[in-house]
This record gives sequence, C-alpha cells and structure tokens, in this order.
Amino acid sequence: MSDSLDIIEIAGKLKESLLKRELIIVIGLFEVYYEGRASSTLGLGERMLIIKSDHSILVHRPTGYEPVNWQPPNSKIDVKIVEGKLIIEARRTRPAEILTVKFLEVYHYSSFKLRDEAEFQMYATEEDMKKAILLSPSLIEEGFKPIEDERKIHPSGFIDIFGVDSSGRLTVIEIKRKNVTSEDIRQLVHYVESVERELGVRPRAIIVAPSIQKSATRKLTLYGVEFKCISPKKCLEILKKAKGLGLFTF
Amino acid sequence: MSDSLDIIEIAGKLKESLLKRELIIVIGLFEVYYEGRASSTLGLGERMLIIKSDHSILVHRPTGYEPVNWQPPNSKIDVKIVEGKLIIEARRTRPAEILTVKFLEVYHYSSFKLRDEAEFQMYATEEDMKKAILLSPSLIEEGFKPIEDERKIHPSGFIDIFGVDSSGRLTVIEIKRKNVTSEDIRQLVHYVESVERELGVRPRAIIVAPSIQKSATRKLTLYGVEFKCISPKKCLEILKKAKGLGLFTF
Repeated sequence: MSDSLDIIEIAGKLKESLLKRELIIVIGLFEVYYEGRASSTLGLGERMLIIKSDHSILVHRPTGYEPVNWQPPNSKIDVKIVEGKLIIEARRTRPAEILTVKFLEVYHYSSFKLRDEAEFQMYATEEDMKKAILLSPSLIEEGFKPIEDERKIHPSGFIDIFGVDSSGRLTVIEIKRKNVTSEDIRQLVHYVESVERELGVRPRAIIVAPSIQKSATRKLTLYGVEFKCISPKKCLEILKKAKGLGLFTF
Repeated sequence: MSDSLDIIEIAGKLKESLLKRELIIVIGLFEVYYEGRASSTLGLGERMLIIKSDHSILVHRPTGYEPVNWQPPNSKIDVKIVEGKLIIEARRTRPAEILTVKFLEVYHYSSFKLRDEAEFQMYATEEDMKKAILLSPSLIEEGFKPIEDERKIHPSGFIDIFGVDSSGRLTVIEIKRKNVTSEDIRQLVHYVESVERELGVRPRAIIVAPSIQKSATRKLTLYGVEFKCISPKKCLEILKKAKGLGLFTF
C-alpha cells in the first residue's frame, strides 16, 4: 500500500463520525499499545482499525480471525494529532485501561450509519443437547436418571445416554438435532437389540429431537420407540443459564 | 444507508481479490446462515463482512466487539449470484461446516494488500504472575512451597502468596508487574509485621517484579526484604504452556 490520506482531514472526519455514532473503518500503517490489567505492544504494520457505533473498538491484522487488540462498548474515544501522527485513544475506567493506536499513514477511511435489528438465532449441537439433558434429566421425564453417556455398543456404535426411568427400567436415549428419519429409528433399534443381547433385558428406547419425519412417525409404534420433542434451542438456554457462556466460546 | 452497488461487478471484484489474497471489506444488507457443529441464522440487516488474506471470515454487526459469525483461516470461499442475490459461502471440511452470506444490497466494497510483519508482545497481569508462580513455585527458588494465596491480613490487605521455603521458614510474597517502588516495600513490611503479630514468627519477605526503582533498592536491606526478578512475560509463557490459552481468552 502507498497512497496516503491527509491526517488532519481524517482526524476531523473521525471526530464527526464518532459523534454521529457511525461504524468506522480506518486502514493504515500504525502501532498499537495497550495498558491495563495486562499490557501489550504491536509494532508498525499495515492493518485495520474498526470503531463501532457503540464505541467498541477492534484492531485486525491482515490474517487470523481474532482481533489483536480490542475494547468493549462504551470506551471513551479521543482523537488527536501529535508530531504528525494520528492518535486514537480508547479508555475505560473500570478496569482502568487504555488502548492507543498511532497512525503514521492512513490509506483508507470510511464510515457508515447502519441499521441492523435482525434477531440472531443459535441452535445447539447434539453434544450440547446431551450436556443439557445430563444437567437436567427431567427434560426426558420426571424421575429419569442418566447412568452413562457414550456407552459403547458391540460390535459398533455409541448410545448417547444410557439411564433408568422412574420405574427402574433401563432406557436408551438417542439424540438428534434435526428431523428424525426412519434410518435414525433403525439405528436406535439396533442399539436396543445390542443392549438386550448384552444385559438380557430389553430397554426402553427414546429418540430426542426437535421434530420427526412423517414416515418415521409410523415406524415408532412398529419398533416400540418413543419420540420426545426437545429443541436444540431449549438445550442451549439450559447450558447458558448453567455456565454463563458467551457466544464466542462456542 | 441506500446507494447500492452493482452486484455482478462486486462478484467479479470479490473473485479477483480472493485470488490476490487481499483483505476484503464488504458493507451491505445481508442475511447469514451457519450450519455445522451447531447452526445459526441471522435475519436481514446492514452490517460488515470481512474476508482476510488467509481466507478467515468475520461478520460484524454495527455494535458489539464480538463477531456474530466467523470462520477460521483456510476456509474455501465461493462467490455466486443466485436470484439477484450475491452469495458468499465459506466452507470447511473438518469439522464439516458452511457459513453462507446472502447480500441483497452492497453499499461499499474495498480490498487491500497489506503488509504486517510486526511482533505482538503481550505482558501478563499480576493475577497471571501469581498463577504462574503457584504452577511453578521454583520460579521463586528451589524448594519453595506455596500454602495459601490471597491470605487476609488484619486489619487490612492481602498477601499475594504465603508459603514456606526449603528450610521451612514462613515466606510472604508480594507480586508487582512493574518497577518496584519504596511504597511497595513499605506495604510488604506492613504485611510482614501483621504476620509476625499473628503467628509469633517473622516471615521472610520477597518482592517479585521485573524491575525495581533505585531508591527502592536502598530500602531492601534496611527492611530485610528480598527482590526476585521475574518478568510478566516469563509468567505468561508458563501459563500458555500449561493451558494452551488463546489470546482472546485473556
């Protein structure tokens, strides 16, 4: 990169965009210093600074999906020019920290007033669903107690959750995060038969999923399998409540 | 936002920039779908898509410092136009997942070939330094054994680490991530005196930090305090080795 913009002009635009609470993108040659709970320095390089409308701030290098530096919303952002460098400071008081970006060159500046009110919907994995059921076994039914998860089936396969119901009957649980198919039911019946061969009793079989195909519904009675409707979303809520998870941890 | 760019033209630019491994920024009105280990949908809204030179990909809404969707480097990225929409798909095979971005409108497109080879240096917090010492007590000296961290001092204060040395002598450790001052030494002596009042023996006192002020050095002998040079960087390396931490977890 080479063509450089006028730093005084950019400083003016920045102040204006910050006041208007726009999304701001600045590309240029800059250094970054962070001082707070920890501290960090990033030498001169060509990269991207993003300031969002809530005054959260991100520094992104040309590679890697994680920002190299960032500050959460409501940072106090100051813009100034010192010795020919454009300096952007983002401060927070609790914890006391300051992120300082020093531009030697600005190659690109743009700002946008964006409108985004869409809902973000996240659906859990089968692994998440299993964790939620192990955490709250009453999701299956009152009195259900898990004994084992990922129980090995001979010669092949794994039972998602193996447990006993309130009447003490062994129960095999298969979890799907999508529409149950006839093939899923056949697989569960195969697990049931393996358990019967191994332990001498035929267990109850429950398939857990948010929905089931019409053709598969007919197979339920035929094979003596029960369907329990549990959505991945519900499971995710249980996990979030239990762990206080942030989205980025998924 | 309103002024819309020609989608066919943008699709062409995108393909070219992807081949050239540029950093790409696209702002517009779009939906996002993710399907993989979990799944998510994000309805129509005005936001920012970033594709980096390593083909990692980020979707950022106008607020919040976390991306709403993202894919790590080396995603396989396809660009196409279907029913007048610009569609960008980022796929990975292990785990099998696909992120689909559907643009109804594009307001801004820019791409940059950036050069960023600077070193990122991160220095630990006092809390991190304490964790590293608890993990590797020989950082203090051979045979040092921590007994308690954050030991309450009456009437006020906390000892960072309370332990015994190889000769069985009680030891009080104070940790600083910066230059030790005379005031830090006075505080440590105050802790030592509290312990002496409480337990009837005067403990050894060690102040741990990367450096010490000249004036504070003189106080060391005066008050019988030892200085142990340990850098926050060294502590961070120990923690990283132990936990395989990513930067974003700090």
